[in-house]
Amino acid sequence: MNMERLLKQIEFIKQIDQLKYIARKTKLFNSDRHENDAEHSWHLAMMAMVLLEHANEEVDLLKVIKMVLIHDIVEIDAGDTFLYDTSKDHVNTEEELVAANRIFGLLPEDQAEEFIAIWREFEAAETKEAKFAKTLDRFEPVLQNLSNQGGTWAEYDVELSRIFQKIGVIENGSDFIWEYTKEEVQQCAEKGIIRNK
Amino acid sequence: MNMERLLKQIEFIKQIDQLKYIARKTKLFNSDRHENDAEHSWHLAMMAMVLLEHANEEVDLLKVIKMVLIHDIVEIDAGDTFLYDTSKDHVNTEEELVAANRIFGLLPEDQAEEFIAIWREFEAAETKEAKFAKTLDRFEPVLQNLSNQGGTWAEYDVELSRIFQKIGVIENGSDFIWEYTKEEVQQCAEKGIIRNK
Repeated sequence: MNMERLLKQIEFIKQIDQLKYIARKTKLFNSDRHENDAEHSWHLAMMAMVLLEHANEEVDLLKVIKMVLIHDIVEIDAGDTFLYDTSKDHVNTEEELVAANRIFGLLPEDQAEEFIAIWREFEAAETKEAKFAKTLDRFEPVLQNLSNQGGTWAEYDVELSRIFQKIGVIENGSDFIWEYTKEEVQQCAEKGIIRNK
Repeated sequence: MNMERLLKQIEFIKQIDQLKYIARKTKLFNSDRHENDAEHSWHLAMMAMVLLEHANEEVDLLKVIKMVLIHDIVEIDAGDTFLYDTSKDHVNTEEELVAANRIFGLLPEDQAEEFIAIWREFEAAETKEAKFAKTLDRFEPVLQNLSNQGGTWAEYDVELSRIFQKIGVIENGSDFIWEYTKEEVQQCAEKGIIRNK
């Protein structure tokens, strides 16, 4: 029985290797190389450890880390959705739900249920852990864009108001990180690196 | 004061981006593409979540995850050491200690101390969490090599006895995963995919 569980777990471990092939629009720090989802997920987990003290509420670190580790796994089937893509809906798509059921469904049933629940909690962004995880997910590309002369904001000529609208969720998880972000992005616009309106 | 801490933390977050450029010898599953250290660290953290039940002793999952997330960060300065490289020492090198002090030293002092302590605990491989983390660190490339027609074992023509010597530490963290591993590697040798002696 244990062996049956292990074999299912190994199937899942092999399957999620595919996350290393999912390219994000954002590039690495001071770089032209696109980041992939596995690297991004690792970086968010590190940021959770490092930035924990700035969360608005006391959060369960293990839960936050689990969320950020698995949050993009559905993209193996559903693909990466660019934050500033106006043609796509950013709420939970049917495609992502199907992906979650298929990929997490490779695990033994109790684990599949646990992982799907964690992913849904992240997506719903209602609990304090999900809010902080979302803060990290938005903050990493902000830091990358700031290090890349505006990065995707400049590349796709995104309006400042639209940037603020999209990254505003940072505040839900951390007022302090949001204060820092707002100031930095504003300065970036004032310097003419990104659109100033 | 908080801002001073945040700025240090951001410096660290930027610095560790470099882990995405450190190539391992091992390749992704069924692939010719080398894995990098950030991808590897993410995969181990996922494996910690998934394989927890097979640990020999009850372990603190958060601690195991912290270990695997940071265990290779010193390689940003010290480079990757190939497990089957006979010319290099695999115990803690002076170079790695210097790297740990420099990189983790970018963080506020209390965090630097915490991270260095976690890294040292992993390297010492004495606590139950470190033993299980080492099991995962060895088991991932085993699975990759098995999926890649022997992978680095075949590529570097490593003797079976030497493979068993190196991957035997898997047993320290999980008898069950070790039983599975031994059987699979033995079969791989019997099929002539890797050296059978």
